[in-house]
Amino acid sequence: MLENKNQEKTDLEALGEFGLIDHLTKHFHLNQKSTCKGVGDDAAVLDFQGNKTVISTDLLVEGVHFDLSYMPMKHLGYKAVMVNLSDIYAMNAKATQITVSLAVSNRFPLEALEELYAGIALAAKIYNVDLVGGDTTSSKTGLIISVTAIGEAKGEDIVYRSGAKENDLLVVTGDLGGAYMGLQVLEREKEVFKVNPNSQPDLEPYSYIVERQLKPEARKDMFELFQKLELHPTSMIDISDGLSSEILHLCKNSKVGCNLYEDKIPLDPTVIAACEEFKIDSTLVALSGGEDYELLFTLDQKEFPKIKGNPNLTVVGHMTDGNEGAHLISRNNSKIPLTAQGWNSFAKT
Amino acid sequence: MLENKNQEKTDLEALGEFGLIDHLTKHFHLNQKSTCKGVGDDAAVLDFQGNKTVISTDLLVEGVHFDLSYMPMKHLGYKAVMVNLSDIYAMNAKATQITVSLAVSNRFPLEALEELYAGIALAAKIYNVDLVGGDTTSSKTGLIISVTAIGEAKGEDIVYRSGAKENDLLVVTGDLGGAYMGLQVLEREKEVFKVNPNSQPDLEPYSYIVERQLKPEARKDMFELFQKLELHPTSMIDISDGLSSEILHLCKNSKVGCNLYEDKIPLDPTVIAACEEFKIDSTLVALSGGEDYELLFTLDQKEFPKIKGNPNLTVVGHMTDGNEGAHLISRNNSKIPLTAQGWNSFAKT
Repeated sequence: MLENKNQEKTDLEALGEFGLIDHLTKHFHLNQKSTCKGVGDDAAVLDFQGNKTVISTDLLVEGVHFDLSYMPMKHLGYKAVMVNLSDIYAMNAKATQITVSLAVSNRFPLEALEELYAGIALAAKIYNVDLVGGDTTSSKTGLIISVTAIGEAKGEDIVYRSGAKENDLLVVTGDLGGAYMGLQVLEREKEVFKVNPNSQPDLEPYSYIVERQLKPEARKDMFELFQKLELHPTSMIDISDGLSSEILHLCKNSKVGCNLYEDKIPLDPTVIAACEEFKIDSTLVALSGGEDYELLFTLDQKEFPKIKGNPNLTVVGHMTDGNEGAHLISRNNSKIPLTAQGWNSFAKT
Repeated sequence: MLENKNQEKTDLEALGEFGLIDHLTKHFHLNQKSTCKGVGDDAAVLDFQGNKTVISTDLLVEGVHFDLSYMPMKHLGYKAVMVNLSDIYAMNAKATQITVSLAVSNRFPLEALEELYAGIALAAKIYNVDLVGGDTTSSKTGLIISVTAIGEAKGEDIVYRSGAKENDLLVVTGDLGGAYMGLQVLEREKEVFKVNPNSQPDLEPYSYIVERQLKPEARKDMFELFQKLELHPTSMIDISDGLSSEILHLCKNSKVGCNLYEDKIPLDPTVIAACEEFKIDSTLVALSGGEDYELLFTLDQKEFPKIKGNPNLTVVGHMTDGNEGAHLISRNNSKIPLTAQGWNSFAKT
């Protein structure tokens, strides 16, 4: 859980609630012009000067969303921020602030929380967002992290799930399925470790997919690319639950159908290799795996020249009339209805 | 836990995550002009048109912040919202939106969450705030509620903890200690119930203090009164951890001292009676009891005529030079240093 196992352990009770918040947040600096007041009052104060405010929140629960037997605390802090920033970028908005609340049982020493906050701080620095608030309390068991991300955008720039039109192109950033296959590798190593605690797993061949699981990146770079290219997605969503589930959200909210082409789905070679090794269908992994935190958007065909040849952006299909429904056009040209097999945190318990 | 014990119980797994959010939020209406987009996209979109945005977040954990053996789910939902709105009013800002995230174990049927959301809905209606987002997931044990409250204010109206000046009056709204004594009554009845499950507690004499604990109200009315009276507090904080702890926050942030007069502390007669019954010092309860959600603020003496004679506002002391520190002036005129004995959720576990 800790990177250095020889560190001193400090009991949380010794610090108390205020001492803990002060201690964990004292190294955070405020860089956003829109942050008037951060941690340290009843509420944070932000000033978006006429721009719209965009807000999203996610809860990560130990044993449901993460397993500390293979998730380092620093990575967990980083990922908790990414999950939320991804939602802000999916609105085509600039992420500017976060709040982080923790419920933590007394099995965690202070040093574990310092690691967690080191990951949060790294994410805040790289993505240029200010930590402006939060709450820290105890829990009976386990660790719960609640992050709220705040962003800003001009009203006309915001992209909802509801703007897709018939004949729009369906575009995905990056590649899919990596996070899910990384999880499969980590789960397998955990089982091996249970049987033989001295085993030294060689994760090298899986480094890309393991990193996709443990340290995902939100697509700030894509948000910035859209601005540079003057690209105007008609609808957008981030891929947290799997491509299939997200396509259905866009279709439902935009009242359109969709044809998704199996042979267009972008897969990294390591994902394909891992799927072969685990005997899982790679298309199914991309459709239902989840946690990729890529962006899925629709685009008027007129804008295609702006994205043509960009290796980060792949056209995977097009939108159809709402009555046609959403389908996968398979490699052998059969038309299969898409179903929401997205990651369901209730079914998993 | 449920008001009607004969209701059908519906398993959460049957609904899934999206079904559950849709189900729980479908009766919420958006009333705030500043809400552009609520639940149903990657993020909510708000427009404060040049006003500043104020944000606060709190986490409530079963077994730490609430006990479902005497806290009805509907009250819990209401209280979770109040705790957060109180922080917004303490900035002298108008509360406008909330997000609510839940982690819930499968021991809770759908009907329990419906009760919880009925309380959230009632709070949202009475306090005129829009529910604009959230996350719903499973937990290994127990219930965790994370609420983020959002508000707006003109920059010049916002009151921080840091503006108190020497000689300012220290003023408290309402009365103190009720929530803590209500908790003592409820804890005692729980113990009685364990011994004799057929006992019928008569809570009638304690109804005021029990309500202060189970269904507190945030002081929206005081925020509105300040506007009506054109009152300009120099600093303000809400009383969530006890008067003593909050005074120390104001002193530290404003770099002033304080003299608090014991005989001025507003106590309801039921609080005094309960303190006598439980053999607890009522001043200690007001100083350290917590969960009153009243407002504590400082005021330039020139503004005193505006509040004189108002039964909701009590002058309890005045601010002194920073070098003097914060003291309680007792009934027998001795000067006792105030210490932070506020409610500490880590010490309690």
